[in-house]
Amino acid sequence: MRKVVLGLGISLDGYIARPDGAVDFLFMPKDYSMAPFFATVDTAVMGRKTLEAGLKMTGGKFDNYGIKCYVMSRTQPPGEHDGYEFTHQTPEALIAEIRKQPGKNIWMMGGGKLAREFLKADLIDALEIGVVPTLIGEGIPLFPAGFPQREFKLVECKAFSKGLLVLKYERARKKASTKK
Amino acid sequence: MRKVVLGLGISLDGYIARPDGAVDFLFMPKDYSMAPFFATVDTAVMGRKTLEAGLKMTGGKFDNYGIKCYVMSRTQPPGEHDGYEFTHQTPEALIAEIRKQPGKNIWMMGGGKLAREFLKADLIDALEIGVVPTLIGEGIPLFPAGFPQREFKLVECKAFSKGLLVLKYERARKKASTKK
Repeated sequence: MRKVVLGLGISLDGYIARPDGAVDFLFMPKDYSMAPFFATVDTAVMGRKTLEAGLKMTGGKFDNYGIKCYVMSRTQPPGEHDGYEFTHQTPEALIAEIRKQPGKNIWMMGGGKLAREFLKADLIDALEIGVVPTLIGEGIPLFPAGFPQREFKLVECKAFSKGLLVLKYERARKKASTKK
Repeated sequence: MRKVVLGLGISLDGYIARPDGAVDFLFMPKDYSMAPFFATVDTAVMGRKTLEAGLKMTGGKFDNYGIKCYVMSRTQPPGEHDGYEFTHQTPEALIAEIRKQPGKNIWMMGGGKLAREFLKADLIDALEIGVVPTLIGEGIPLFPAGFPQREFKLVECKAFSKGLLVLKYERARKKASTKK
């Protein structure tokens, strides 16, 4: 089954962005490449604010590596705009729809509130988190409070230059719930 | 100089305890030992609630490995009670006093609000954090918001059985501020 992978960079205190959305504290060291990750996904799902933050960061357009991008928004009209597929669907409905088609994994890009909705619905199958060695002191959390406990299995932890730590986890569901 | 090391176990979403103080989600795998850490410290500093949670967890008394324990409390009378040294001092004053004596490193045991006071005063020299592979969804954060940005250097990341991850960082202070 196509996995939903929550993949994001965070501060050491767990923030995906500063209170104003800035992500200047994140960095990508030369010895780290997202290419292997991109090779495993062909679809991305994000909230509208994450899209806007991403566009701001990259000066107008994600280099989306041919990835199909869904933007979950309550305020924007559904349908394709500028290469992004806007949708009003719930996380469950959207992921079910995507999974009707064969394909690679699905990248859940955030933000935190949307990640929480996905965790509530137990849709997150894996985590791939880059942790920078900085406590920023305040910001937008990757895991805002308010979802049931979820167990994971540590798959990999790897340190890159400048202290970037990349952690990979897979959801460890109880047998009973995987039988459904 | 005797370093102040913030050393704690946390959930993958950054909590040191559940909202009611329970730490049932933490665990200590057989291949991990705190002995090497204990060998580097001879003094511990904690908040009153952390002391009480610790006592509750261990059924009445920390096995303190001969470590001198300071409990920072605004409500308890200062002085020694039951082998713990209670104090009304500020973090700065307490750490300055401890450092007047030669000795090993100083273990900052939390809780989160006290860790924040220490981070505000830039007293944390190192982090040693055990991360369990569980998102608990809500709780008492290790790094509650409200302190200035602090840079660290990743020193070590090591995985133990059951997915416990132990991360070691050292404070990376700018040259100017270390000259004071």
